[in-house]
Amino acid sequence: MKNDLLSQVGELDLIRRICRNLPRRADVAVGPGDDCAVVRAAGDRTHDWLLKSDPVIENVHFTAQTPGRAIGHKALGRPLSDIAAMGGEAMWALVDVVAPAGVSAAAIGGIFRGLSALARRTGVAVVGGDVSAGPALELHVFVVGRVAKGKAILRSGAKPGDSLFVTGSLGGSLAGRHLRFVPRLPEGRWLGQRGWAAAMIDLSDGLATDLRHLLRRSRVGAELRLDAIPVSRAARRIGNSRASALCHALTDGEDFELLFAVPAAKTAAFAKAWRRRFRLPCARIGIVTRRPGVIETVDARGRRGLLEATGYEHFP
Amino acid sequence: MKNDLLSQVGELDLIRRICRNLPRRADVAVGPGDDCAVVRAAGDRTHDWLLKSDPVIENVHFTAQTPGRAIGHKALGRPLSDIAAMGGEAMWALVDVVAPAGVSAAAIGGIFRGLSALARRTGVAVVGGDVSAGPALELHVFVVGRVAKGKAILRSGAKPGDSLFVTGSLGGSLAGRHLRFVPRLPEGRWLGQRGWAAAMIDLSDGLATDLRHLLRRSRVGAELRLDAIPVSRAARRIGNSRASALCHALTDGEDFELLFAVPAAKTAAFAKAWRRRFRLPCARIGIVTRRPGVIETVDARGRRGLLEATGYEHFP
Repeated sequence: MKNDLLSQVGELDLIRRICRNLPRRADVAVGPGDDCAVVRAAGDRTHDWLLKSDPVIENVHFTAQTPGRAIGHKALGRPLSDIAAMGGEAMWALVDVVAPAGVSAAAIGGIFRGLSALARRTGVAVVGGDVSAGPALELHVFVVGRVAKGKAILRSGAKPGDSLFVTGSLGGSLAGRHLRFVPRLPEGRWLGQRGWAAAMIDLSDGLATDLRHLLRRSRVGAELRLDAIPVSRAARRIGNSRASALCHALTDGEDFELLFAVPAAKTAAFAKAWRRRFRLPCARIGIVTRRPGVIETVDARGRRGLLEATGYEHFP
Repeated sequence: MKNDLLSQVGELDLIRRICRNLPRRADVAVGPGDDCAVVRAAGDRTHDWLLKSDPVIENVHFTAQTPGRAIGHKALGRPLSDIAAMGGEAMWALVDVVAPAGVSAAAIGGIFRGLSALARRTGVAVVGGDVSAGPALELHVFVVGRVAKGKAILRSGAKPGDSLFVTGSLGGSLAGRHLRFVPRLPEGRWLGQRGWAAAMIDLSDGLATDLRHLLRRSRVGAELRLDAIPVSRAARRIGNSRASALCHALTDGEDFELLFAVPAAKTAAFAKAWRRRFRLPCARIGIVTRRPGVIETVDARGRRGLLEATGYEHFP
């Protein structure tokens, strides 16, 4: 069955197939399909637990030229960004390393220095893991986090009329940011504790794709104000026009910023509270609409378009 | 620095280097170095949490000929065996899959059928994971388990005079058992709940090596009765003499049986209680002694020998 190869089936379809028959338990509040799994410990009255794993693989997430410290930083940063997107606090991590025998112990040491530096900064303990021989350098990092009981911010909570906000600026991450980003843990936690965000996701696959994930789980649509999308300096540098830079901001992966929905009635108070609390910019890029899965765009002159499922195509 | 390559440094030395500077937290009861990490949730009065990750990698833990179901079974079975060795109950698992694009979706489906079957049998929910492209087929399984507060059975609890027991029979796992073993979860849990085992480890690297791990953490030695070691049928089949079969039982990896220490005063009562509770054989293979790290052997005729650190060498 040639057309059954992973290269043809695609990641999303494969995951859908896998998830159909996975064993469940009554204490799993949120299974596959959100930024983290949410589980409930019978003996714990105060918190739910967040579980997340993420790999970084040579020639996929970094290259042979990437410094070890940056590899380690990114390997832990990726799952931490998912904990942030649930409004959670990160606690403990396990690290599986796969490495060819020709890698130097110094290189592995560098990776762990980068990983440990971010762990210290975010209050995470590295409590175990494994080192195995394998054909390429890889790290698989598992993180356990927690969130006040019932307070995890899911992708599924957006309602028509909510404002859509995004932290930082987007696009061009490959120029360097994907190795240096700091997961938005304080921001995510604050959004959860204060009850501002009704739905949230971290941007790992690009705004257009991740927005679609959030909308699908919430069964809503969105209207994006293109002139409000915060285009990063890197995206402007690599884009040879304003339209091209915007395209990078919409479709480039690995921004690791937060995208979230704030109920309409809270929008003004939220914007003020954010500015008081954080220096990091937070832009209102659109609103949630009723039409499931449909992303409309409006440019600075009021011209309307549609963002197609395959990425950004209909550019006004 | 050529002699800094992983192939020369060795796994244990590498892990030692890595572990020197890992970030910690006060709520980590047991960090790297036992079968699982043990962590304490502030809000949980009844349980401690067990965290474990384990990889299976093509051409290391299985071959291109291994059926998908067996790969999935082994991938989950390995960390579950570690949960068993802490006296724990397994709850939730995350699964990271790495696969070349040329792998078929049906093959991945088979892997998840094997994994899910074992998960159902052991009461584990698969709550998430990741699928990535990479040069070889791999699974990294992360398991969260629990154990009554303060009751995790560590490697470090063995005292001189304790009896050493091992479940099942040992050696020759490569002939098939390494793909079919059932992690000893009911046995491990019972050993913990009834307070029989003072120290425990699962046999993944072979009895000689894993016994040494347990002795090192407990700062004790052992005297092994060679004629009491349960040699598996597979080890007898591949060994061309009694001595060779015993050598396989002592040094072959991936038995996934439990090795544990029972206080001297409880030994007789324990042996009786085990037989009442389980059909699985459990053999008393020796006793714990005072001399740290020294493993003495006694054969059927009373001749004494030493088991060297590098494996089984002094064979009487």
